[in-house]
Amino acid sequence: MHKSRLGGLIIDCKTDDLDSAGLFWSRALGLDIKPVTHPVDNQYVSLNTPGNDIHIEVQQVEHDSRVHIDIETDDIEAEALRLEKLGARRVKKVKSWLVMEAPTGQRFCLVGPQRSEFESQANHWD
Amino acid sequence: MHKSRLGGLIIDCKTDDLDSAGLFWSRALGLDIKPVTHPVDNQYVSLNTPGNDIHIEVQQVEHDSRVHIDIETDDIEAEALRLEKLGARRVKKVKSWLVMEAPTGQRFCLVGPQRSEFESQANHWD
Repeated sequence: MHKSRLGGLIIDCKTDDLDSAGLFWSRALGLDIKPVTHPVDNQYVSLNTPGNDIHIEVQQVEHDSRVHIDIETDDIEAEALRLEKLGARRVKKVKSWLVMEAPTGQRFCLVGPQRSEFESQANHWD
Repeated sequence: MHKSRLGGLIIDCKTDDLDSAGLFWSRALGLDIKPVTHPVDNQYVSLNTPGNDIHIEVQQVEHDSRVHIDIETDDIEAEALRLEKLGARRVKKVKSWLVMEAPTGQRFCLVGPQRSEFESQANHWD
């Protein structure tokens, strides 16, 4: 048995100026910027979402700007198999996460648990 | 003074089969499909998100599949002016909502209040 649910929203920005991108989305959504939590790479600005809300990050990318969904799970392999049965396909592994593509065309990522209350509120899959 | 915050996530699907698209995302995210709430047009499947969570809808579209953000507000014109000052631009009005484009390239929509607790939890702008 494993668990998953919507974990977050990643705002992918094709930009040379991540600080300005992060500032725009921080102000647009009225969410403060978190202190740096990825000291190893500097391609993210994380926004501070209240309580159990989904996490939101602004990411500097090379591909065209878009928004993508993260699904949080305690077992990425089991979740990938579940989603493949629903028609999704694996695209690639990047660091600790797995990029997948929905049958409807959007790319999304499987990541480890991100939000508070994951244990009690995520969906349970047999 | 007006208010706004992140209202929801719209999963735009270029598809002839909205039912299958809605079913995939319902199962992928572990969220039930709501009974039809847009009796006038049939281009939406709404997912049932718990409590004060953002709303999530699967929308049948003509353009390429993507995900877009809705910002909920009690004053669309005032919110559009605020976001223009931050660098966003207006794209078009569609029914009761306004499509805008972020300086980072993503399109998003301004819509009326959607989530519960909008009044108490949205950001206040002077």
